[in-house]
Amino acid sequence: MAGDGKIEKVSIIISKGSLEGIYPGLIMANGARAEGMEANLFFTFFGLDAIHRDRYEHIKLATVGNPGLHLPTWLGSVPGVSAAMTRYMARKMDRLDIPPIAEFVEMIADTGAGLYACQASVDLFGFARDDFIGQVKDVITVGEFYDLAAGGQIVFT
Amino acid sequence: MAGDGKIEKVSIIISKGSLEGIYPGLIMANGARAEGMEANLFFTFFGLDAIHRDRYEHIKLATVGNPGLHLPTWLGSVPGVSAAMTRYMARKMDRLDIPPIAEFVEMIADTGAGLYACQASVDLFGFARDDFIGQVKDVITVGEFYDLAAGGQIVFT
Amino acid sequence: MAGDGKIEKVSIIISKGSLEGIYPGLIMANGARAEGMEANLFFTFFGLDAIHRDRYEHIKLATVGNPGLHLPTWLGSVPGVSAAMTRYMARKMDRLDIPPIAEFVEMIADTGAGLYACQASVDLFGFARDDFIGQVKDVITVGEFYDLAAGGQIVFT
Repeated sequence: MAGDGKIEKVSIIISKGSLEGIYPGLIMANGARAEGMEANLFFTFFGLDAIHRDRYEHIKLATVGNPGLHLPTWLGSVPGVSAAMTRYMARKMDRLDIPPIAEFVEMIADTGAGLYACQASVDLFGFARDDFIGQVKDVITVGEFYDLAAGGQIVFT
Repeated sequence: MAGDGKIEKVSIIISKGSLEGIYPGLIMANGARAEGMEANLFFTFFGLDAIHRDRYEHIKLATVGNPGLHLPTWLGSVPGVSAAMTRYMARKMDRLDIPPIAEFVEMIADTGAGLYACQASVDLFGFARDDFIGQVKDVITVGEFYDLAAGGQIVFT
Repeated sequence: MAGDGKIEKVSIIISKGSLEGIYPGLIMANGARAEGMEANLFFTFFGLDAIHRDRYEHIKLATVGNPGLHLPTWLGSVPGVSAAMTRYMARKMDRLDIPPIAEFVEMIADTGAGLYACQASVDLFGFARDDFIGQVKDVITVGEFYDLAAGGQIVFT
C-alpha cells in the first residue's frame, strides 16, 4: 500500500471447495487484475479442488447448511438436488458472462495472476504436483505465502 | 494505515446469508464506528439478504453443517428446528443489547458507515436497486470496492 | 507493515467451530510465528470452542454442507460418520506432524502468539473466564482487537 493511494496487491486465500465458496475469491482476483493490481491466489484445504485437474470442472453448490439459498434442508439433501441447483446457477452465471470455475481459473491465470497451492494441504490430501493444472506456478508454504503477500492486502475466503 | 498508528478504515465484505454468517461483519463494522474509524460494508452473494427489504427480517441460523452448534445433523434438518434455534439465539442477543439483523444494519448505517451492494451479485440473483433498503448508498463493482477500501483493512466474512 | 518490506504482524480471527474451520487460522498463526512475525488469535462466535476447556479436544469435521468432502449429504448426516471422518482426518494430520487442535492451540500460545476471546461472544454463550484454557491472555472487545491489530494484517477465518 502506498500511503492512502490505490491498493497495489491482493493475495487471496481460497479455502472452501463449494461453488459459492470459490467464486468470491475468483471474482476478487479478476477484479484486482482488471484494475491493474497484482493478484495472487493461494489454494488451501478444500479450495485445492479449484485447481485439481480431475475436480475443477465438477465443483458443486452446497445445498445444505446455507439458509441463504432458501431451500429446506430435507430438499437440499435429496440426491440430485445439489447437481440441479449447480446447473441452474451455472446458467445464470453464463448469462452474466461469468465463466464456469475451471475456465475462470484459467482466464485469471492468463491475466497474470499468480496461482499457488498450499504445501501442507497438498500433503494432507496426498496430492502430487501433477494433480494440478499447469497454470499453478508453485506449491508453497504459509511462510512463503506471507512473503508473497507483503505490501498488499490478504483476503481469506 | 498511518504507520504503526491506529487503523483508520475497515471495509468488510459480507458474503453469507445465515445469521451466524452475517453478525460477525456487522459487529466488526459497529465496533469500528464506535472507535471512530471509517467503516464500509460490501454485501455480496447470499450476504445481499442482509440488505434485502423482504428478507433482512427473516435471516436464519444454519443448523446443519455447523458442528459448533452441538446439534446432531438429523435434528438440525428437522423442519422448524432452524426457526426455533434462530428465535432462541435472537432472545440471547437481545439480552446483550445486540439488535436483530434488520435493526442492526439500519443502526450501523445511521452511525455513518457506508453500505454497498455488489453489482455482479445483484445481477446474478436478478435483484433491482429497489429490492434493497434505502440505507444502501450504491451498487458498485469489485473495482470500485477496491478504490473505497484503499488505505484501510479489507475483512472478508 | 513497513513499506514493501515483510509483514510484521497478523491478527487472525477464528469464528467457526468445525475442524476445517479452525485449522486454517491456527496454521496461519503458526506459520507467522515461525517467520518471526507477531501473531494474535481472536476467537469469536463458534470459534470459542477452540479455547474452551471442555470442548477443544472434541472439535469435529462438518460432514454436511461441504461438497469439498465428496460425501453424499445422506451419508454425512448418518450418526457416527462425522466422528469417523474426524478420526480419519486426525490420523492424516498426525502423519504430517500437524497436532490435534487442543495441542496445536497450546503450542501456538507457547511460541508467543497472543490468544484472546471475544467479549460479546463470551457473553452471548454465557461463558465465564474459567471456561477457557489458561493460555488465553484476555477477553477483549472488538475495539480492543482493532488496537491490537493496528500496523498489521487482519485475517478473518
